[in-house]
Amino acid sequence: MSKGVQQRAAPGGAPYTPIQGKKKPRILSGMRPTGKLHLGNYLGALQNWVVLQDSSENLHMVADWHALTTDYEHVEEIAPKTTDMVIDWLAAGIDPEKSPVFIQSHVKEHAELHLLFSMLVTTSRLERNPTVKEQVRDLHLEDSVSYGHLGYPVLQAADILLYKANLVPVGEDQVPHVEITRELARKFNHLYGEVFPVPEVRLTKFPRVPGLDGRRMSKSLDNAIYLSDSPEVIAAKVMTAYTDPKKLRANDPGNPDGCVVFAYHRAFNGENAEQIGADCRAGRLGCVVNKRNLAAILAEQLRPFRERRRELEAHPERVREALRMGEERARKIAQETMREVREAMKLP
Amino acid sequence: MSKGVQQRAAPGGAPYTPIQGKKKPRILSGMRPTGKLHLGNYLGALQNWVVLQDSSENLHMVADWHALTTDYEHVEEIAPKTTDMVIDWLAAGIDPEKSPVFIQSHVKEHAELHLLFSMLVTTSRLERNPTVKEQVRDLHLEDSVSYGHLGYPVLQAADILLYKANLVPVGEDQVPHVEITRELARKFNHLYGEVFPVPEVRLTKFPRVPGLDGRRMSKSLDNAIYLSDSPEVIAAKVMTAYTDPKKLRANDPGNPDGCVVFAYHRAFNGENAEQIGADCRAGRLGCVVNKRNLAAILAEQLRPFRERRRELEAHPERVREALRMGEERARKIAQETMREVREAMKLP
Repeated sequence: MSKGVQQRAAPGGAPYTPIQGKKKPRILSGMRPTGKLHLGNYLGALQNWVVLQDSSENLHMVADWHALTTDYEHVEEIAPKTTDMVIDWLAAGIDPEKSPVFIQSHVKEHAELHLLFSMLVTTSRLERNPTVKEQVRDLHLEDSVSYGHLGYPVLQAADILLYKANLVPVGEDQVPHVEITRELARKFNHLYGEVFPVPEVRLTKFPRVPGLDGRRMSKSLDNAIYLSDSPEVIAAKVMTAYTDPKKLRANDPGNPDGCVVFAYHRAFNGENAEQIGADCRAGRLGCVVNKRNLAAILAEQLRPFRERRRELEAHPERVREALRMGEERARKIAQETMREVREAMKLP
Repeated sequence: MSKGVQQRAAPGGAPYTPIQGKKKPRILSGMRPTGKLHLGNYLGALQNWVVLQDSSENLHMVADWHALTTDYEHVEEIAPKTTDMVIDWLAAGIDPEKSPVFIQSHVKEHAELHLLFSMLVTTSRLERNPTVKEQVRDLHLEDSVSYGHLGYPVLQAADILLYKANLVPVGEDQVPHVEITRELARKFNHLYGEVFPVPEVRLTKFPRVPGLDGRRMSKSLDNAIYLSDSPEVIAAKVMTAYTDPKKLRANDPGNPDGCVVFAYHRAFNGENAEQIGADCRAGRLGCVVNKRNLAAILAEQLRPFRERRRELEAHPERVREALRMGEERARKIAQETMREVREAMKLP
């Protein structure tokens, strides 16, 4: 992002290399509609989506049905959060002509394939899913985990395979889900004939930045810098960022490890990070100055993003048109896959 | 059925009485595509469907997706069995102009509502469903019960509520499922606003007939008489029927209780059953004669059915047209309900 978020460089890792001599791999990626995205969301996914646009065929899905698996009560937030998030996608450089963006619940075939897949996986297999286990423990769900929550890897498999995606770029923690997708593809093909690719996992290391308080950056922890934050808001937030508590005065030597400001420099100002770290350790760089510098750099890097966002906010019809167009293209693929699925299953 | 299956009398119980001063109740009833129907299917459901056509608004669904919950392997049988069953429905007197007949998997909204409902019911609630518990025990499923099998009451709730059915005529054993439907209707309405009626259970006593061997009449036990059986086949089958094993000669006194032939007389020749029982007990009626009489009565009662069936087999386009028309009407209602559902849930 050192040259602005519109740029297709991948500071966090090498851009995806297409498989030699094969046509571009297809990737389905989705996000739950969480509203405006923060720097963590950007580095953890969106940046990679933008980078992959040229080397692969991408579809980007607002996973609104998935949002219901863990919260079916606050539904009134889903629609405005969808709009806010899609604006961020487009402002960050997703080209809707190249990569269709669409809302999951607008393509009913996701529900149809989910229902068919639900016959092909056992309840006990889903109960062994470590992520659901963790969520049950963390959210104290035990006896109240919903049927849909238990089945979300089945919905995810339907999402991926409906588009015959053959590559799934994920972080380590997502591998168990993709394994269920792969099992379902194999089982379906074995029972009814070859319809689905068995998608390959591409383990991707996503650069992480901490939240302002040093914990995981998260909307709910109220410690996030948003892509859409104004320079003033960025400056004010950065001023509150956690730094080495032992560095009390500007010329005390500091320890950049664990310092949030330094972590942001590393992620967004990589070429100068080493020097900044050295200056901090040597007591040549005070935290206040360092924060001001960082705030200016972030504000400047996010400028093109903010400009495009303002433009899209002024023209909501462009966002609607992007979604309409994406939905149409997604539906066309989805309908064709379901035609093959029904034919393979010989359903009436 | 004493005056032929085309007749709308309900030998097994009083015809349904419409709720005073209210518009006709709506009923969704479905059968898994099991192929040609036997006398047990007729008495246990189809006869009632025919009877209810005038007093209520009925929709009849081929539950092909449900068939997958317990058998996803023999899919090639589903389509021909669907045709055979729908021919039986129409031949038995279902008027597709009055009561739409359609195939579940052709109305995608079932899958959509099923997915939404899956968020509103806990896994543990579904695990307490006594019918699933029984099936798990009987089919030795334990660790291999599929996710879709566990969720079939959720799919059933979607089937019923998609059409806002307000009456569910069921036998005692079906009551626990309908309870899940009622819970889902209430929960949805409570969370998102009134969309669904909470359907009432109408406990219906379905007359039962045993199979030829005295066990439950069932296709898989190979002990069934089919609505479509020819007089010759009926005669041959009735000859093998289980009777009182202590009645060895024609003029031995017999015990009609437990005698399959007598059970069929009671169900299909009610007006003469008492006399037949008395003659048997008195040793005035031999089993062979009794069986010949029954076979003749059954064959005669099923004659109009067989004639209509032959007619429909000769004109498969009529069956297709009935399904097409039914599907269109069902889909229209389903789409309207889903529009309300999405609006209530404020989905994007």
